[in-house]
Amino acid sequence: MNQSNDDVLKGLQKLEHWRLSNNEIIRTFEFLNFREALAFVNHVGELAEAADHHPDINLHGWNNVTITLTTHSSGGLTQKDFNLARQIDGLQM
Amino acid sequence: MNQSNDDVLKGLQKLEHWRLSNNEIIRTFEFLNFREALAFVNHVGELAEAADHHPDINLHGWNNVTITLTTHSSGGLTQKDFNLARQIDGLQM
Repeated sequence: MNQSNDDVLKGLQKLEHWRLSNNEIIRTFEFLNFREALAFVNHVGELAEAADHHPDINLHGWNNVTITLTTHSSGGLTQKDFNLARQIDGLQM
Repeated sequence: MNQSNDDVLKGLQKLEHWRLSNNEIIRTFEFLNFREALAFVNHVGELAEAADHHPDINLHGWNNVTITLTTHSSGGLTQKDFNLARQIDGLQM
């Protein structure tokens, strides 16, 4: 991890639906259909471009989108990941 | 596999860039940047909707898109997968 374990724990505590796996945080979103899942991918893409921080975005099983966040340039989780995670959470109505 | 091994081999032989893994065919496309990768995701999404056949679409490492095709309802590869793979190949300029 790039940040101290304490910082990572603090960041995680503010996120309800994400799980920690190695140096990444991961959340899966489920949608009614493929089209809605694809629209969500695009919304996440817009946030990613605005933040210049790009998660992995996996549209799978036709209606699920799994987002994986880490900061490769720092070798682990940073505040950038937690900030973008919160923004992505904000997309959910 | 749903189709006979012969049918699968024939389908695969017509595809140059896909690899067979278990009951799926997989190809990774690389782009100049995240925005181009995301545009490709949308083009694949349009083809998928038109075919009513939905691959897994994984945008990863900011400029790569991995497409995984199988026919879950048939428990393996079918002609639907090979048809959509060829259409996706056609997106590449």
